[in-house]
Amino acid sequence: MGDGHMGVEAEASTINDHGSSDDHRNEVDIYPLSCYYFGSKEAIAFKDETLYDRINRMKSNYAAYGLRTSVEAVILVELFKHPHLLLLQVRNSIFKLPGGRLRPGESDTDGLRRKLSRKLSANEDGNETEWEVGECLGMWWRHDFETLLYPYLPPDVKKPKECTKLFLVRLPESRKFIVPKNLKLLAVPLCEVHENHKTYGPIISGVPQLLSKFSINIIDT
Amino acid sequence: MGDGHMGVEAEASTINDHGSSDDHRNEVDIYPLSCYYFGSKEAIAFKDETLYDRINRMKSNYAAYGLRTSVEAVILVELFKHPHLLLLQVRNSIFKLPGGRLRPGESDTDGLRRKLSRKLSANEDGNETEWEVGECLGMWWRHDFETLLYPYLPPDVKKPKECTKLFLVRLPESRKFIVPKNLKLLAVPLCEVHENHKTYGPIISGVPQLLSKFSINIIDT
Repeated sequence: MGDGHMGVEAEASTINDHGSSDDHRNEVDIYPLSCYYFGSKEAIAFKDETLYDRINRMKSNYAAYGLRTSVEAVILVELFKHPHLLLLQVRNSIFKLPGGRLRPGESDTDGLRRKLSRKLSANEDGNETEWEVGECLGMWWRHDFETLLYPYLPPDVKKPKECTKLFLVRLPESRKFIVPKNLKLLAVPLCEVHENHKTYGPIISGVPQLLSKFSINIIDT
Repeated sequence: MGDGHMGVEAEASTINDHGSSDDHRNEVDIYPLSCYYFGSKEAIAFKDETLYDRINRMKSNYAAYGLRTSVEAVILVELFKHPHLLLLQVRNSIFKLPGGRLRPGESDTDGLRRKLSRKLSANEDGNETEWEVGECLGMWWRHDFETLLYPYLPPDVKKPKECTKLFLVRLPESRKFIVPKNLKLLAVPLCEVHENHKTYGPIISGVPQLLSKFSINIIDT
């Protein structure tokens, strides 16, 4: 075990308990970035569209399939004794959590495994079960096509247009990440993303809060 | 059942599942504000001190007892079909979640029940078990006496000075709230506190995110 959060948790636990029987679920083991191999593969297609096009596409998709649901992964590694969040960067600008839109009828877990394999693994179709999709950390709603995302639904919004669900994905001790050439995979420290709306947007900048209930154990390998 | 979040969840569930076996823990039933009775009792003492005094008090308490741990409750009621968060207002200015500091050796749950009885119930000593303290939603750390609170611990902080833990407290269908005269109990809509750092501070303004993974069921009584 490393001496990151663990030392503090051990100290705190001498005078406290969490008061519940499910403490084991509130732990995340993280491994050094150096445990992982990073390679690249063929670029994947992105829709190159204006905001106007995007809204029109969302409208026609909503008419055809109803609520659009996206699933995104919160994946942590250790670097400089601090938890880092894995983010994908598109065109050197937008940061995104790895994930994407569900197919009609697809479960959250199956969809997230499929998206993670597509964006982070060598083999798109196989190995999907190797991703350990854990608990849902939060959900954000788009109340209407033109509005931003919010972590709640007001009473007058009967038909939200989009839901984005965040899931904790625990990594094994080793893994090959194979990333499409037109995406950049970055490890960003939690202290850098916290409340940094301007750079990372509302969802990513809130991830440190969503993770704050977990004891993050840095594993020395 | 009301038609708040439920209708949407029902719609969403036709095309999704949460992919986990513990969905029942991701639900919160909330009751109309009109289900509750509100009264007042004797004022409780507050320390009227400068920031300088406060820091000195924290330092001497840290020397005597070590890490200071506070526990706070996230309590919801329904009003206008939208979840409202119960907040205490001190001196018409600062907003606080109900809760407070643990005694040395006291568990989170016992301490939170004691504090809730002191600030929200008629009888300070009895009835403490009537508060259903649920899961931990988040933790905030004060890295040093003079710093703000953050939802993580950087590696160089081996001895944080303060930890604030947030717990979900589910209310029964009816309850008497008896509040000290010098505190005001308010029900504030989630949409009002979300990202409203300026008025509510970093902890309260992040509560809607911490609650976003829950299905909030509005119960018509």
